[in-house]
Amino acid sequence: MWLYLAILVGLYYLLRWHRERQVVSHLRDKYVLITGCDSGFGNLLARQLDLRGLRVLAACLTEKGAEQLRGKTSDRLETVILDVTSTESIAAATQWVKEHTGDRGLWGLVNNAGISVPTGLNEWLTKPDFVKMLNVNLLGVIEVTLSLLPLVRKAKGRVVNVSSVMGRVSLCGGGYCISKYGIEAFSDSLRRELSHFGVKVAIIEPGFFKTFVTSPPVISRSYQET
Amino acid sequence: MWLYLAILVGLYYLLRWHRERQVVSHLRDKYVLITGCDSGFGNLLARQLDLRGLRVLAACLTEKGAEQLRGKTSDRLETVILDVTSTESIAAATQWVKEHTGDRGLWGLVNNAGISVPTGLNEWLTKPDFVKMLNVNLLGVIEVTLSLLPLVRKAKGRVVNVSSVMGRVSLCGGGYCISKYGIEAFSDSLRRELSHFGVKVAIIEPGFFKTFVTSPPVISRSYQET
Repeated sequence: MWLYLAILVGLYYLLRWHRERQVVSHLRDKYVLITGCDSGFGNLLARQLDLRGLRVLAACLTEKGAEQLRGKTSDRLETVILDVTSTESIAAATQWVKEHTGDRGLWGLVNNAGISVPTGLNEWLTKPDFVKMLNVNLLGVIEVTLSLLPLVRKAKGRVVNVSSVMGRVSLCGGGYCISKYGIEAFSDSLRRELSHFGVKVAIIEPGFFKTFVTSPPVISRSYQET
Repeated sequence: MWLYLAILVGLYYLLRWHRERQVVSHLRDKYVLITGCDSGFGNLLARQLDLRGLRVLAACLTEKGAEQLRGKTSDRLETVILDVTSTESIAAATQWVKEHTGDRGLWGLVNNAGISVPTGLNEWLTKPDFVKMLNVNLLGVIEVTLSLLPLVRKAKGRVVNVSSVMGRVSLCGGGYCISKYGIEAFSDSLRRELSHFGVKVAIIEPGFFKTFVTSPPVISRSYQET
């Protein structure tokens, strides 16, 4: 009996080992668009995927951010200026992606762009503070996703939305947690809709990492302003 | 040993029975503002609290809804026209509540106003569809709450936000689930902030009830339009 159990456990680990060592092939043919590549996670991911050989389309908010990123990466990586709160900017970036990817479509879309201020106790804030946050962190993600979805479908690709641990636990006042809760809701219904078409939707829920989003001077300035 | 256990269980039920039969006293001195009293839950709650003797301040979107409600309730109940998407309308209603409640403050605020359309698969919708929903269901709740909070604090009252089962499970595309997830996040951080001041914040998560929000003609028209 113990022998059977040992074999079963062994088989389980063998399968797991096999599954874990699966890697995506033909990385050099695959296009990934990442938003918010000026700094933080977006910047790191763009550089890392570029190193691995993927064709990174890095969307930056500023020309300065785009220039600095290009300085640190290979010629494969290309940048585009994208303001996720602007419908025109999103349409222009979508057109640019379409021209680059052609028939292959977009294999990956990483919605990483986000802000963490204005923040503070709810009572310190006003409606425009919430609107500002939701426009970037939530409606930005939604509009970018909907706009690029036809290209992602074409490649049977994947959408990765950067949520947060605060998308599960509402630890602070203001729009941040609300926007991240919203990302969770949007991603989950989208995941279910697209699963039939071979498109995957995933979320990432980082904790407290040292990026611009958690920068103490930025947060404390926002506290003082509100 | 069994005797001790029986006594413990008995005590537990005695305590529970005692707790359950606590009721709020002096209902006739207590003011409650309910939004979205034109129909559905808001309308029912306004009529029920009026019957129990509370001083109901019923906010309706339309004059017609307000008139119909007044026709079915006592003279204690008063109505005000409120569009939760308009900052001016909220400011005017807040002033009206202030004049009515005076020193006593607002004992209860029920954020019930909400819409369920436009709805559909995420891919059928555009940014303005999401914006419209969030403006009513999420930003409306936030701005009404922040505006009336000083009056609720004065009465050491309570805020009750009507979320939904879809604030926990994202079952459909579009802004509805997103807005209700947002209500959960907002209510939870607000609850923590206000607990020190004797103000309670609660949410209600209804399932599928027969109100305007779940009206088949309304939903199916929205499906056809999107």
